[in-house]
Amino acid sequence: MPLDLGAKGSCHIGGNVATNAGGIRFLRYGSLHGSTLGVEAVLADGEIFDGLSSLRKDNTGYDLKQLLIGSEGTLGIITAVCILCPSKPRSVNLALLGCRSFQAVLDIYKFSKEKLGEILSAFELIDSECMKIQETYGGHVNPLQDETLPFYVVVETSGSNEDHDELKMSSFLEEVMGRGYVVDGTIASDSSKFQSMWSLREGIAARLMKAGVVYNYDLSFSIEGFYELVDVMREKLKGNALHVCGYGHLGDGHLHLNAVGPTLSKEFLSLIEPYVFEWTSDRGGSISAEHGVGFKKRDAIHFSKTEKQIGIMQKVKSVFDPKGILNPYKTIPSGS
Amino acid sequence: MPLDLGAKGSCHIGGNVATNAGGIRFLRYGSLHGSTLGVEAVLADGEIFDGLSSLRKDNTGYDLKQLLIGSEGTLGIITAVCILCPSKPRSVNLALLGCRSFQAVLDIYKFSKEKLGEILSAFELIDSECMKIQETYGGHVNPLQDETLPFYVVVETSGSNEDHDELKMSSFLEEVMGRGYVVDGTIASDSSKFQSMWSLREGIAARLMKAGVVYNYDLSFSIEGFYELVDVMREKLKGNALHVCGYGHLGDGHLHLNAVGPTLSKEFLSLIEPYVFEWTSDRGGSISAEHGVGFKKRDAIHFSKTEKQIGIMQKVKSVFDPKGILNPYKTIPSGS
Repeated sequence: MPLDLGAKGSCHIGGNVATNAGGIRFLRYGSLHGSTLGVEAVLADGEIFDGLSSLRKDNTGYDLKQLLIGSEGTLGIITAVCILCPSKPRSVNLALLGCRSFQAVLDIYKFSKEKLGEILSAFELIDSECMKIQETYGGHVNPLQDETLPFYVVVETSGSNEDHDELKMSSFLEEVMGRGYVVDGTIASDSSKFQSMWSLREGIAARLMKAGVVYNYDLSFSIEGFYELVDVMREKLKGNALHVCGYGHLGDGHLHLNAVGPTLSKEFLSLIEPYVFEWTSDRGGSISAEHGVGFKKRDAIHFSKTEKQIGIMQKVKSVFDPKGILNPYKTIPSGS
Repeated sequence: MPLDLGAKGSCHIGGNVATNAGGIRFLRYGSLHGSTLGVEAVLADGEIFDGLSSLRKDNTGYDLKQLLIGSEGTLGIITAVCILCPSKPRSVNLALLGCRSFQAVLDIYKFSKEKLGEILSAFELIDSECMKIQETYGGHVNPLQDETLPFYVVVETSGSNEDHDELKMSSFLEEVMGRGYVVDGTIASDSSKFQSMWSLREGIAARLMKAGVVYNYDLSFSIEGFYELVDVMREKLKGNALHVCGYGHLGDGHLHLNAVGPTLSKEFLSLIEPYVFEWTSDRGGSISAEHGVGFKKRDAIHFSKTEKQIGIMQKVKSVFDPKGILNPYKTIPSGS
């Protein structure tokens, strides 16, 4: 399955496709728009959309299943899918690296693409605030000795040849340590260390909820501008927030921005929204990288899409669901 | 550019996206539905579809650009695209292998996935009739000594590490020769041999046109059923056709079936159509793997899509182009 999510213990594949989930290996295996070969769905009129093809190539008319992928159940209810699955990798290597600046993170990413090439399977960022939250509320111990570092990255490779992959990883590590991009690091030498390294990254969302009331944003940017908004919000919420932190899929430009406040508060929220959306929109980013629009961001969709596009979406919704019975009030603003 | 086509000397990128071209490295880099990040297009009302995003992840509403990909200019005219490009591979290896049966070809394919893993970048089939046509009309010499073989495959790897890639390729070759799947083979040791090996595969379409009047079909199947139809048509056209041959992207299940007749003839065509489409449809295949529907196959689209799907396509066409001014008479049958 070319998809691996923090929510893998509870999510369903139909929901993954309906929301176009991305996850931690998107960097390697790409979007479900590329790997979903077929979709069967129940449409609003009760008829079946019978597109459960397993063909890799089929250019006969419009690729309608693409509309169902990521439609959040507003165009049809996905009942079966056919997904192209890669071979299970025989060798997996994982490293946690600490570095002194965001620029160093970008340099490491550049070198990971060059040195690890086709076996790079994840490149994730954890900032120091997320690391502290994991220590305080998750009982984790930072496995790196230098605890003053602002950024950590998790780099994973998956490949078909253990010897080759280890050589590529060690050549990469030598390069980034030698150049001073990485000041401290550790590799997962056994499966329990592998699990604990991934849970450091994947457990952040759950630990944040123990720290207070979480206001979280699922944004995407160019990789260069990935972390800027976290600093901006830290400054803006100074004295009001308990924590402001960022983590996510750096290789995909996908940032999870979190502000933790002491209580549920409209005043606190008004310091964040619509500012976060405006800031993101001004930089050509997406206000929903992978979690979708739902009802919460339905009226904010114009921060990422033009009036023209939203107008076409409304008409497409009417084609599939003229009575508006599928997930009403979600995703697409109602037409004027 | 994650796309490499026989037509690369003359085609345009806008047209590639408008027709959802696949090509010889689809196996590695996947569909343009996965790698096209943004599309700008002129719509039927003269307005701009302003979706030229370079974000890897954006789940804000329906992914409308997916409809433009492969719409053959019937929903809008693509004027700019943003495509995710892989790093240029530093090491490329190429082998031409000859084998005694189609089952051996399937076995080689299975081993290529296992042994070559993430560096496998193309797996192409050439049958002996195509090879003979290349010798007769292309002046090529079959580089393998055993000229009685029914099938040839071109296997390519692309990767980041020359030593690793060569080791993987030699381990793969040892395995398939040792098991008897391959009875003769050669590898490209320099760039001129590399070019000539690829031109053996890529030049088939042009050489076929020198052999007579070509009736060609662009079909996709499950990999197991890839070649069956060539044998079926060879039997059916015995005594009428000059040549019946098959080649194509085996790794993608994408067959180029060609029947060559002496003249342009309705009688000859009636021996092929609609039989080829019916046979393909009965096996769940596509009657247009990548060349699109155009006006020639518009009324045959029902062999690959249901009435329900075609009905939705017609409504989607009306949303984008209510007056039917974009490529009329192509791709989508007009509504009843």
